[in-house]
Amino acid sequence: MSILVVGSVAFDTITTPSGHVDNELGGAATYFALAASHFTDVRVVAVVGDDFTAEHEKVLQARKIDTRGIEHVPGKTFRWGGQYTDNLSEAKTDFTELNVFEKFQPNIPAEYMDSQFLFLANIHPVLQAAVRLELDKVKMTGGDTMNYWIQGTRKELGETLKLVNVLLINDTETKMLAGDKSLPRAARKVLTMGPQALVVKHGEYGATIFFREGAFGIGSHPFRAPSLPIEEVKDPTGAGDSFAGGFMGYIASQGEVNREVLKRALFYGGVMGSFAVEKFGTARLQSVTRAEIEARFQVFKELTHLE
Amino acid sequence: MSILVVGSVAFDTITTPSGHVDNELGGAATYFALAASHFTDVRVVAVVGDDFTAEHEKVLQARKIDTRGIEHVPGKTFRWGGQYTDNLSEAKTDFTELNVFEKFQPNIPAEYMDSQFLFLANIHPVLQAAVRLELDKVKMTGGDTMNYWIQGTRKELGETLKLVNVLLINDTETKMLAGDKSLPRAARKVLTMGPQALVVKHGEYGATIFFREGAFGIGSHPFRAPSLPIEEVKDPTGAGDSFAGGFMGYIASQGEVNREVLKRALFYGGVMGSFAVEKFGTARLQSVTRAEIEARFQVFKELTHLE
Repeated sequence: MSILVVGSVAFDTITTPSGHVDNELGGAATYFALAASHFTDVRVVAVVGDDFTAEHEKVLQARKIDTRGIEHVPGKTFRWGGQYTDNLSEAKTDFTELNVFEKFQPNIPAEYMDSQFLFLANIHPVLQAAVRLELDKVKMTGGDTMNYWIQGTRKELGETLKLVNVLLINDTETKMLAGDKSLPRAARKVLTMGPQALVVKHGEYGATIFFREGAFGIGSHPFRAPSLPIEEVKDPTGAGDSFAGGFMGYIASQGEVNREVLKRALFYGGVMGSFAVEKFGTARLQSVTRAEIEARFQVFKELTHLE
Repeated sequence: MSILVVGSVAFDTITTPSGHVDNELGGAATYFALAASHFTDVRVVAVVGDDFTAEHEKVLQARKIDTRGIEHVPGKTFRWGGQYTDNLSEAKTDFTELNVFEKFQPNIPAEYMDSQFLFLANIHPVLQAAVRLELDKVKMTGGDTMNYWIQGTRKELGETLKLVNVLLINDTETKMLAGDKSLPRAARKVLTMGPQALVVKHGEYGATIFFREGAFGIGSHPFRAPSLPIEEVKDPTGAGDSFAGGFMGYIASQGEVNREVLKRALFYGGVMGSFAVEKFGTARLQSVTRAEIEARFQVFKELTHLE
């Protein structure tokens, strides 16, 4: 089944120990959509400016992504600049120009109203909630958020969390959201806020999914997919969104949500995140083949498989 | 088969968010020995002062650990004080009193000379090498080190690494030793320095074992054991040494080294590390049963097991 993602499309200016790029096509919705497109049909709701050309749109269309929900408005597209120096898992932001993204009001095309799988990328929680409430065929909603919303709009975020089935955030965000430094305890607290499952992304160490008791009818034991760190991380930008794209895209492709599907989805999330960082921007997500994805899935599976 | 550990016995004064203890029995050799004792016979070579009483020795003897190699000399036992505040994975040292440990010259009893498994805990690399060279029946040597030796005695450490079959260190130490910020690349470099295998301990995320091509006749694919973070870490002190004790103790109990043994050993390392942190000092390592160890091994195994 197809999945709808709502989030940012951006142009990123990135410096890492491996090099530098200017105004590279990026944004959470872009990374998510490209990653998910290897598993299922993807629809995008986002906003861009005059500088987003037909060439940029073709990057998505080449992966058969439905771009009718990308609204073009006068002005410049969202731009972000950042650098990774010592710590490849954390960017130092050089500049953020919201531009047309500042007044983003998600506009869902009529053709998208039958979407059954939804991913709310990292935008204002009030917008996330509005999108979810507008779609009445959705059977599973994934969501992301960040420290900025956790600290600045906690009440609104609380309302959104009640509408999200699976929240995907990292270790730091989980602890901050719960106000608890113990990860398993923090995860348990977050699961009382609404989501039936919480995926905690550990960067190069993989990810763990925690379940609320009885969620999806599958018990409450957590599950972990350990990714294998790759030799050279060229550009970590978008790794988390690519993880979400692999995770949600695989679930949507299966159509049903059970424990085994969620477990495999967690591995596919790690696989797509690991491909994303191999090249600058979205280049690797564009070029990777399904055979390469399956091969890496096997490597990750065997990485922890005991006889 | 029995395993010999050479390292520190200490009294630790520890503050964590869960509480405080004064002069608690600790030290790398103590944690290692107690963890390994659940799998095999353990022999200890260490030095202690007058303040190390029969009561302290009984803690080890109650686990059938051979303490004949613990040398008693006039003076005080090594003392360390530290605290864990925000970050439970890193201690802030309050004081280090080497005391009798300052002039530690490992004295190996005649009864230990037939040892086939050896663990060189974190002591001066010159002492580590001397112990290894004195024992001519050893078929597998595990070793630990730390930033202090990596920076201060690199040449001596280089000689010791040629004598170590499996080096067990953490992510930061691996990158420092190799001078490379990419973990897989750093691991490959460390494996050119001597060890056939490198175990990188990731704290709450488990551990990865990297193999030199052809090591132990088992190919070069890495393997990871993902530990499950426990609800409340009372005291992280000794987690790494307990990991090493579980890892090496299990290997010694099997008598032979093959890929499956090493994989299971990595899981047992994580299991013993996770028990160690549940109570202050070595209390949990003293009380844990083999049935509890096996139960947690199963939990860790199922944590990442795909159908």
